[in-house]
Amino acid sequence: MKVISSGHQDFNAGDLVWGITGWEEYTVIDNPETLFKINHPELPLSYYTGILGMPGLTAYGGFFEVAKPKKGEYVFISSAFGAVGQIVGQLAKITGCYVVGSAGSDEKVNLLKTKFGFDDAFNYKKELDLEATLKRCFPDGIDIYFENVGGAMLDAVLPNMRVAGRIAACGMISQYNLEQPEGVYNTICIVTKRLRMQGFLVFDFYDKYYQIEEQIARYLKEGKVAYTEDVVEGLDAAPAALVKLFTSSSIGKQLVAVARE
Amino acid sequence: MKVISSGHQDFNAGDLVWGITGWEEYTVIDNPETLFKINHPELPLSYYTGILGMPGLTAYGGFFEVAKPKKGEYVFISSAFGAVGQIVGQLAKITGCYVVGSAGSDEKVNLLKTKFGFDDAFNYKKELDLEATLKRCFPDGIDIYFENVGGAMLDAVLPNMRVAGRIAACGMISQYNLEQPEGVYNTICIVTKRLRMQGFLVFDFYDKYYQIEEQIARYLKEGKVAYTEDVVEGLDAAPAALVKLFTSSSIGKQLVAVARE
Repeated sequence: MKVISSGHQDFNAGDLVWGITGWEEYTVIDNPETLFKINHPELPLSYYTGILGMPGLTAYGGFFEVAKPKKGEYVFISSAFGAVGQIVGQLAKITGCYVVGSAGSDEKVNLLKTKFGFDDAFNYKKELDLEATLKRCFPDGIDIYFENVGGAMLDAVLPNMRVAGRIAACGMISQYNLEQPEGVYNTICIVTKRLRMQGFLVFDFYDKYYQIEEQIARYLKEGKVAYTEDVVEGLDAAPAALVKLFTSSSIGKQLVAVARE
Repeated sequence: MKVISSGHQDFNAGDLVWGITGWEEYTVIDNPETLFKINHPELPLSYYTGILGMPGLTAYGGFFEVAKPKKGEYVFISSAFGAVGQIVGQLAKITGCYVVGSAGSDEKVNLLKTKFGFDDAFNYKKELDLEATLKRCFPDGIDIYFENVGGAMLDAVLPNMRVAGRIAACGMISQYNLEQPEGVYNTICIVTKRLRMQGFLVFDFYDKYYQIEEQIARYLKEGKVAYTEDVVEGLDAAPAALVKLFTSSSIGKQLVAVARE
């Protein structure tokens, strides 16, 4: 977004900024603490809705601040091809972890392993027994589960966690549209394996945004992280694009382009 | 226990010690890092199986190191009359928290409120809707849940947690003897309320034992904490005493006295 007029000392007309706003061509911001300047306009501006914006900050903060990874640890990411998941996986590889992701199509599984550098990936829709699948992928167990899915996936992960493992609970997309949420039966593993499961939201990391923006911009320029977007044009295309989030059919960060310069 | 003979420099014949051993009159210890000296023999030695031993260390470590309480916070303890629960509740009161406990009999509920200083308590067996009961006890929500029960109790707690609340997962006694564990349906609250749920075991705190022993011994001598035991005599009484743990019928820390001086 570009600032047209500002009464705030930190923002001037012409500044490029990002923030969480409505789907509209013009917007009025009255909580400037949720607005950030764009310091790398040489990168695609749309990246500030993704890897350099909210999903990037969520991924970076959730992985480093919540999951607190160590080199050599085993990391599992559900909804790994999602905007957050694909960034987490690449950060985990940069950290020296072994990384496996789940996704909802063979195309995504293939891209995770080729373009995004995951050590392994599987299509959860084709697995009959997720607990056994995870056991096969992680014969020594999981140190970090980056949770985007919830429900049956969480239940399959818990018995596969290692002692002192961490579950960074970013989202539970499988549960959002259910009349009655699914039961999770293996919560006792949290006690027996001394797990830490912790929820977070992106604004937990707002105070570290500019540092994280610098770090991710550097990775992008050095080619250390890849990024994909799935852009549709115009507000008319928005409802169908929203539904794609819940049918696993977006390939990359789902964007709706409302206005272009 | 008294040391009869020792080949370890830290322990001498005649020393009073405690540790996790078998139910026997004599024992051989080959992992001395799990054995602790008794520094307050002026207090009842049986306390070293309870408030000055494993349950005391579990309560102190779980509450201060895992739940990280702040003055004025709202604390809920399930199985609050258990050996660990009654200590946690008193530590929470000393910290300046508002404390409610659940227990399995009216006698225990009454003792929690009178002898142990809980602000409120309820008999979970008489409540038809635990989620509503907790809402009544905590109209502003729960900051810290000290989890001893699991299953349906955990499910009732989750929607009552406050944002950034903590669940110190000490045990899930309701689940230990089930063929199929109960489902927990409200795990999404961990994301939406940014909760931290963390399991732990007593040996996480072994390195702090002597400091904690000093602190609890001081509280006992100052009359700041109360303590109860339910002692049965002889190994023959042990099986029935064990079963009492699962029927909510022990009044205080369940002990089996095998040998007395």
